[in-house]
Order: sequence, then structure tokens, then C-alpha cells
Amino acid sequence: MSKVISINAGSSSLKFQLIEMPEETELAKGIVERIGIEDAVFKIEYGEEEEKLTTDIQNHEKAVQLLLEKLQDSGVIQSLDEIEGVGHRVVHGGERFSDSVLVTDEVIEEIEKVSDLAPLHNPANLTGIRAFQEILPDVPAVAVFDTAFHQSMPPESYLYSLPYEYYEDYGIRKYGFHGTSHKYVSERAAELLDEPLDNLRLITCHIGNGASVAAVKNGQSIDTTMGFTPLEGVTMGTRSGSLDPALVPYIMDKTGKDVNEVLHVLNKESGMLALSGFSSDLRDIEDKAAQGNERAELALKIFAGRIHQYIGSYASKMHGVDAIIFTAGIGENSKAVRERVLEGLEFMGVYWDPQNNDVRGKETFINYPHSPVKVLIVPTNEEVMIARDVQRLAFNE
Amino acid sequence: MSKVISINAGSSSLKFQLIEMPEETELAKGIVERIGIEDAVFKIEYGEEEEKLTTDIQNHEKAVQLLLEKLQDSGVIQSLDEIEGVGHRVVHGGERFSDSVLVTDEVIEEIEKVSDLAPLHNPANLTGIRAFQEILPDVPAVAVFDTAFHQSMPPESYLYSLPYEYYEDYGIRKYGFHGTSHKYVSERAAELLDEPLDNLRLITCHIGNGASVAAVKNGQSIDTTMGFTPLEGVTMGTRSGSLDPALVPYIMDKTGKDVNEVLHVLNKESGMLALSGFSSDLRDIEDKAAQGNERAELALKIFAGRIHQYIGSYASKMHGVDAIIFTAGIGENSKAVRERVLEGLEFMGVYWDPQNNDVRGKETFINYPHSPVKVLIVPTNEEVMIARDVQRLAFNE
Repeated sequence: MSKVISINAGSSSLKFQLIEMPEETELAKGIVERIGIEDAVFKIEYGEEEEKLTTDIQNHEKAVQLLLEKLQDSGVIQSLDEIEGVGHRVVHGGERFSDSVLVTDEVIEEIEKVSDLAPLHNPANLTGIRAFQEILPDVPAVAVFDTAFHQSMPPESYLYSLPYEYYEDYGIRKYGFHGTSHKYVSERAAELLDEPLDNLRLITCHIGNGASVAAVKNGQSIDTTMGFTPLEGVTMGTRSGSLDPALVPYIMDKTGKDVNEVLHVLNKESGMLALSGFSSDLRDIEDKAAQGNERAELALKIFAGRIHQYIGSYASKMHGVDAIIFTAGIGENSKAVRERVLEGLEFMGVYWDPQNNDVRGKETFINYPHSPVKVLIVPTNEEVMIARDVQRLAFNE
Repeated sequence: MSKVISINAGSSSLKFQLIEMPEETELAKGIVERIGIEDAVFKIEYGEEEEKLTTDIQNHEKAVQLLLEKLQDSGVIQSLDEIEGVGHRVVHGGERFSDSVLVTDEVIEEIEKVSDLAPLHNPANLTGIRAFQEILPDVPAVAVFDTAFHQSMPPESYLYSLPYEYYEDYGIRKYGFHGTSHKYVSERAAELLDEPLDNLRLITCHIGNGASVAAVKNGQSIDTTMGFTPLEGVTMGTRSGSLDPALVPYIMDKTGKDVNEVLHVLNKESGMLALSGFSSDLRDIEDKAAQGNERAELALKIFAGRIHQYIGSYASKMHGVDAIIFTAGIGENSKAVRERVLEGLEFMGVYWDPQNNDVRGKETFINYPHSPVKVLIVPTNEEVMIARDVQRLAFNE
């Protein structure tokens, strides 16, 4: 038995989970927020216990120190020796990383190199890696990339119809994100379907505040809705998703904003927030829509409608589909969104049972037994996926 | 019997066609190019005859005068009195025009108002309208808008997921283009299918140097791929089609171009031209691909692939599809593109016969007789559509 820490480091935050492998048992989890800011907050849960602490935490190293102390104080671990690996979520692996990788100095350098493609995320992710290197120098670390699973896309999926040298010189192409989640739910769906993954055409819908759909054929991502950045694709909580690129100069001209201000609007002030006019939170929007709010109803139609259309698009691309999978906050919990996404897909063999769909957050089949296309809810678990990669790459098992 | 002139005026050009109505017989057609530029060129065809003339033509009025002289000299008409109506193509009708309209001073004002949305096209179209007003003041004129047919789209199709006031204050929404063509082939397909149009779910693929796909349900456009401008949607000759809007600032940053220069690249230096690296002309690309050129092959895959995916997307949106229609230069003539677009759609009921597909530019069914989804080639005829609207709106018949 080995214990693995799964880490997701932001610029002023550190999410963690301690997992017993290979059982995949969650032993503790929590988050440190406001790192480097006054009154940082540390939260940890283990078993039935919960602890919250407000204190100044200067940097990520101090956060890691505090985390390791707390794990020992609470008795979750007896000694730091029990931690046999650390897995780090890294947002962008560029074209360099098509799989998770054991962290070395060279790997860190490569992650720095692609930081240009994810300037807000990769440097923050590296802060987490460096903090653990400092404090647990002898414990192997593994980097797990959000983009890696989608590196299997063929050029006809990842190339934009732009001057080819933009791809060669600037790395402009579709990368896709949420890869760890799309991979996890694909593998789990194959188990639940009792079919080999390399014999399945899956459409995985990761629908949370950020949302993406992927076409997974024989276990490989062959297309996904997010693109060069996570802005592209379906409508999201505050992101616009795809739109006519000619709108960027037009909005600049009309509003007097510069291009980066427009980009900020598209990322932070658009999507469900803009359509509803009051919230980016789907629960608020569903409530208001039920009360007859027209803008909320319209927002829901657009949100689910875009996903609904991508299911047709990806089914075409794979010449059919064997199963559709819903995951992440909204995909797992909103029966109303799933209902709207699935409505009217009988023409392609999707028959689903409203009663089966009336569930929240658990692994379920929601299709009728006779449906040629299966439909599943599979709660995602990126932390376990990260821990699995630590085990595979660091444990020589 | 009445003769109608159908006009498509560009900033330095005037395309015309003289049509006998209601028989819809083409009597003459041609183009004046380089208007206002030295050595303007006038070309006219009537019956088996062709005439070409190089001379200075100062403005659109002079072009119209010359055109009318030539029609009389050639004997196609005996007198100007025979011309009973003029139909003008106008690119953008904004939200104001959901149908063609008899031209009045108020209509001209309204077309000017929406010129902001099509600054390159509407003013040029108006030049044509004004030239005919000057020269044939008593002949009724009808404006036929590229956007009008798509005004039936519901808000969930036309709204972008952007701040709502962008729609209210700046008219930012999806308009769609090629409407006259999508409408023409929809109506013609219903005739060929021998079904009432208001009982059909059609996907119309207008594939030329510009390309768009539309979902036509019960005779109404409910979605289309072009958006606020013709840049959005599928890959085209020189247009990129849809891409991650975050690429605009990134390309600006990498290339040092300003936003309008980037827009120029997306409109004029992208698409098939950029992917192939040598031509925007599909015939060149098909030739090179057949010779083993990899970039040409990739360009074809992307070009056809995007259309292929929209067929799935729109079938989902309409909860199935009754017929798929190909039109315009490439759609009518390239069996290879149609083949790639249709490949693997059996899962949604599309069964087509490669032998039937081996045709160019004529009305044909290319599905197998037993195919639940029909597939047709319908050569488009925007000029006849314009003439029909002149007859409907100007002749009080």
C-alpha cells in the first residue's frame, strides 16, 4: 500500500488529496487559499473530520509544510515516509507531452517553455512542483497534463484553417483541455459497458463551470471542443465559447475596449452570466427559468443546445456513437440539462429513460436497455487519475 | 410575359441577368468589371452569342446605360419598355428585412443604416440601385437580401453568448448569408422530393469559394454556419471559418499585426489557400491531392470534414433530417467533396450511391432509393430567385 498526494496548484491556492493506492481510497483532501495574501485559509477533511484554519501563509512552500504537518497531527499519516509519490496537475503540455511524465529538471524546463501557451496556469502549477521538490526532495513527482489526452487528435482535427506557419512558428493549433477527466470517464465507461475501450466510440461531455465535449474513438481523443485556449467550444459559465472571430475588432470598435479587454469580456463576463443577466451558476439559472424568467430559459436552451449539436457533430465524425457520457458538476447533477442535451436524438439511436435520468452524482445508465446508444453518468475523478499515473510512472510496478 | 433584370452590384462591378418571367428563361447575362478604373471590361452573353468590350466606364450609371444599349443593339429587347422590373441583390438586411422588399426612399435609408454591418457590400449594392433609379425611374425595383431567409432563426440560434447589450446596442448576433441560395434550393428540393416544404427537415450545403450550411425546417432557416459576418463557420477558399477567438490577440502579439490586419489574414489569406499552401481553388487542390501532395490532402480532409460535422450537428438540432442538398460551384461539381462529406453517415440513415454521385452540375438524387435520408444536387440560381421576388412584389399578380 502506498500513499500518493494529488496536487492542483493555482497562483494563490493549493488543492490537495491524499489517496491510498492501488485501492484508490481518499484519505484526506482540502485546499489552501489566499497564499501570499493576508489571512490565508487552510481547509482539510479526513473521514468525518473537518478542520479550518486562518493564518498568514507566505508562499506555496509554507502551504506544503503546513499541509504535511496537519496530515501527521491528525493521524492520517504517521510519518512523511509514507508518502511515496506526488502527482501535479499541469494545465498545458503543448505538443511536447502526450502522456504524464516523471518530473525531472528537463521536464520543468519544458513546462516553462510552453508557459507562453498558458501564462496564467503553468507558472502556478510549477510553483506547486517546486514547493514539493524543496520539502520532499526524495519523493518522486509526476506531472499530469490537461492537454495530454488530446494529443492523439489527428491534424485534420487540431489544425485551424490559418497560415500554416502560424502552427509551425507559434504553436497555434487546437490543444483541448479537461483531458484527465475525459480520459478517466472514458476508461470507467468502458468498464461499466463491459467492452474493451479500443472497440468503442464515445462522446464524453464534461459539463461544469468550464465545459468541453470530446470524441473518443478506440480510447483516443480524436476531437474536442476547447481549442487553443479553453475559451473555444460550447457556452460556459462566463465564457462565450465559439463565435465569429470578426466580432473581436467589431466589439473593440463599438466599445472602445482594447483587444485584451475584449478577451477578458469573452472569458469572464460572457456565457451563462451574460445570457441570463444575473448569474453564471446553473442552479440559480434553473431556478429562475422554472419561475418563468425568459432570459434564464434562453440561457439554458443555448447552453444545452450547443452541447446537443456537438453530439451530432462528433457522432458524424466517428460514423456513429456507442455511448454518451455525462460528467463534472453540471453533467453529473443536472437532470434538466441532460434532458435538454439528449432530447430528440432518437434518429441516431439514443433512447433514454426519464426515470433513470432522475439521479444526481452517481454512476448510472440512463438509456433504456434496448437503446443502441448507451447513455451514462460517470462522476469524474481527476485526483484518482493523477494518483494512477503516479503509481504507473513512479512506482515501477 | 415580362422581362426582369437581376443585378448584383459590387464596388467596381455589376453582374446582370435578363430573365423572362414567369417562364424563368435566361435571355442574357454578363458582367461589367473595373467600373471607375481605366480599361473597364463589359461582357455579355445571349443565346449562343458572346460580346466583350474594353472601354472606360466612369461609374455604375454609365455601366447601366451601356448595358441597356447593348441589350437593344443585340436585339434581345426591342425597347426599354419591355423591362418591367429590376431585382437587386443586397448583402445585409440586418433585422429590418426578413423578406425582399419594393425599393422606396425609406428602404434605401434603412439599407444605409445597416451598412455598418456590411461596410464593403451594402454601399456598393446601393450604387446599383441608384443607377437604375436614375436611368429607369419608372421601373419598379426590388431589394433581395442575403440575410433575409435566415431571419427566421430563433434567438437560441442567433444569439452569441455575449453581454446581452451587445445585441441590443450594436446588433451583434448571427445573421447568416447565402440566404437566397439556401431558400432557392430548399424550395426546389421540396418539388423534387414531391413533399410540401413545410413538412421537411433539410440541410442545405452551399459550397463555393464561400461556403455555408443551413438547417431548414418546415421551409424556415433555423440555423446556419455563417454568423455576424461571412467569416464564421466552415473552412472556405480564403476564409478561416470558426476558430478560438482568443487567437486574435495571440496572433496580434506574435506577428505584430493590428487587429484589422489579422482580420484581413482570416478573410483573405486563410482557409484552403493557407492549408494547401498554393491555391484557394478546389480544382487545383484536388489535382495535387491526387498526385500525393499531403498538404492538399489535409486541406481537403479539413474542408469536407467541417461540413460533414455540421450535417450531424444540424440533424441533431432538427431531431433528424429528411434530405441533404448540395449546391454552388463545389457542391454541384465536386464528386470527391460530396463523397467525403457523406462518408459514414449511415448511422443517421444516409445511404448514397457512388455511381449516382458521379455527376456534375445537374439536378440529381444521389441516394440509393431505399435511403431514409435523401441526398440531392440542386444547382442554385440566385438570379431566378431574385426575379421571382420582383414578380411577386412588383407585378401585383
